[in-house]
Amino acid sequence: MPKHSVVTVPGGEAHKTLATCEKIWEAMTKEELDRHALVINVGGGVIGDMGGFCAAVYKRGIDFIQVPTTLLSQVDASVGGKLGIDFQGFKNHLGVFNIPKSVLIDPVFLKTLPEREIRSGFAEIIKHCLIADATKWEEIRGKDFEEQKWPDLIAHSVKIKQQVVDQDPTEKGLRKILNFGHTLGHAVETCFLNKSPKERLFHGEAIAVGMIMEAYLSFERKMIDQQTLTDIEEFLFATYGKVKIKPEDIEEIIALTRQDKKNRGKEIRFSLLKGAGQCAFDIVVTAAEMRKSIAYYLG
Amino acid sequence: MPKHSVVTVPGGEAHKTLATCEKIWEAMTKEELDRHALVINVGGGVIGDMGGFCAAVYKRGIDFIQVPTTLLSQVDASVGGKLGIDFQGFKNHLGVFNIPKSVLIDPVFLKTLPEREIRSGFAEIIKHCLIADATKWEEIRGKDFEEQKWPDLIAHSVKIKQQVVDQDPTEKGLRKILNFGHTLGHAVETCFLNKSPKERLFHGEAIAVGMIMEAYLSFERKMIDQQTLTDIEEFLFATYGKVKIKPEDIEEIIALTRQDKKNRGKEIRFSLLKGAGQCAFDIVVTAAEMRKSIAYYLG
Repeated sequence: MPKHSVVTVPGGEAHKTLATCEKIWEAMTKEELDRHALVINVGGGVIGDMGGFCAAVYKRGIDFIQVPTTLLSQVDASVGGKLGIDFQGFKNHLGVFNIPKSVLIDPVFLKTLPEREIRSGFAEIIKHCLIADATKWEEIRGKDFEEQKWPDLIAHSVKIKQQVVDQDPTEKGLRKILNFGHTLGHAVETCFLNKSPKERLFHGEAIAVGMIMEAYLSFERKMIDQQTLTDIEEFLFATYGKVKIKPEDIEEIIALTRQDKKNRGKEIRFSLLKGAGQCAFDIVVTAAEMRKSIAYYLG
Repeated sequence: MPKHSVVTVPGGEAHKTLATCEKIWEAMTKEELDRHALVINVGGGVIGDMGGFCAAVYKRGIDFIQVPTTLLSQVDASVGGKLGIDFQGFKNHLGVFNIPKSVLIDPVFLKTLPEREIRSGFAEIIKHCLIADATKWEEIRGKDFEEQKWPDLIAHSVKIKQQVVDQDPTEKGLRKILNFGHTLGHAVETCFLNKSPKERLFHGEAIAVGMIMEAYLSFERKMIDQQTLTDIEEFLFATYGKVKIKPEDIEEIIALTRQDKKNRGKEIRFSLLKGAGQCAFDIVVTAAEMRKSIAYYLG
């Protein structure tokens, strides 16, 4: 094996910070890594996003390879070159676009994961079906979580995401459809980040919440029909249960959407479904509508 | 004037750090800047490099404009898209490549500068002549510092740098010639950064030291003749005087070249002159040769 050294960092979104990056850059500097060095990021989305960001910024950018080991990072972070870290509680607030030299995805890693982690990753698979493949959506919603075929679904998700990203690498337009469920989903995730560790949500769990709320917004705008809304809602509640959002969380969640990267000025812009298997973007939604969608989720 | 807010940061290389970036990002976040915001960096090289870096990383990159106000930043940092900050005392150790939306250069700003600052910027003009334009080199060395025509020299330097950068934007090869004088120059600058504020060197002053040492290395490798070495040395000593490098600094300077971004593994790679007006790159130089070149400088 060629000369190398291993840097381990604590896992979890709470450590996806500038402080952890500083430790990584310190280690890289101490090892005197030059511009021809290679960084290999083995881990979940936090490691890929943060390790990729550290490589992309060290000496103005050195090569890196992604080895995603969670279902979520295999179907999402592994494609599209988005790198970054959280800042002051805002998700992926600092970062760059940069493509890894290669991405190695092996479903064998799923055996190392607790079920809750796989369930979280499944949310992004569901999202890819909802925004781009109605047939696949019908297929997955016809099965229980335990019956899903992961190697097939991983390949399917990577292909869909790659197709979208190829058409719009830096998210000027179309790529925004990948954010379905993420405007309110990220806000919910951030809101719960500040709670006790026991209450914290996994990314996919928050996105499942966001997808129900944003499917409701799509329905309210007459972009999907009642049946589609019901299908989405039933499948997501059956798979993820219902998250306890307290009355005092609601305004915080709405305020948090103001930091969403898709916004323009004071307008909060959503990506919403237009029928199952299709998605539109840059749809301005008001705080009152968001309030209504959160109320709908809470039932 | 459209809605805007002003962030001021302390000047000087000592503040070109992650800590200052955090303050800038905090201010940007507080103002809720979205992806369509524009950052305008008004100031010297530190402001352009750091403000550009902050913009390039905020929400994975927003637009920025450079308004360089020092001679050094007008002829150097304004062209080529290198952005970044120092880290643990290493110059420009973290950063990215990113091109500003536009660059506004106005020689009127030179009237705001102390003479020492203009003299520092002149070093990069001298470098551009030495690596790429023998005729211009003869022209400037025939005049005293006070007689130089800044608007003409700024345009000349920007043109040369742009030509080099256009051929090799990310410094895989040719662009390295812009580093003539900078391998030992940066090491000298970093070494003096750790001294008392009174002893600190301006960037161009350190590069002038580096250019004499590296002209000597070029001579030792028979890439320039004795007369060219003498011309360079006499002009630079006459313009910048001689920096007092103490015996105990020498090994520190040599050790600091190990962090130079042009290196590959343990090899220290230089860009050296081949005659006045031309430059070669990727030339491996040993610690013993560096020691000799520092001794030559000290006379």
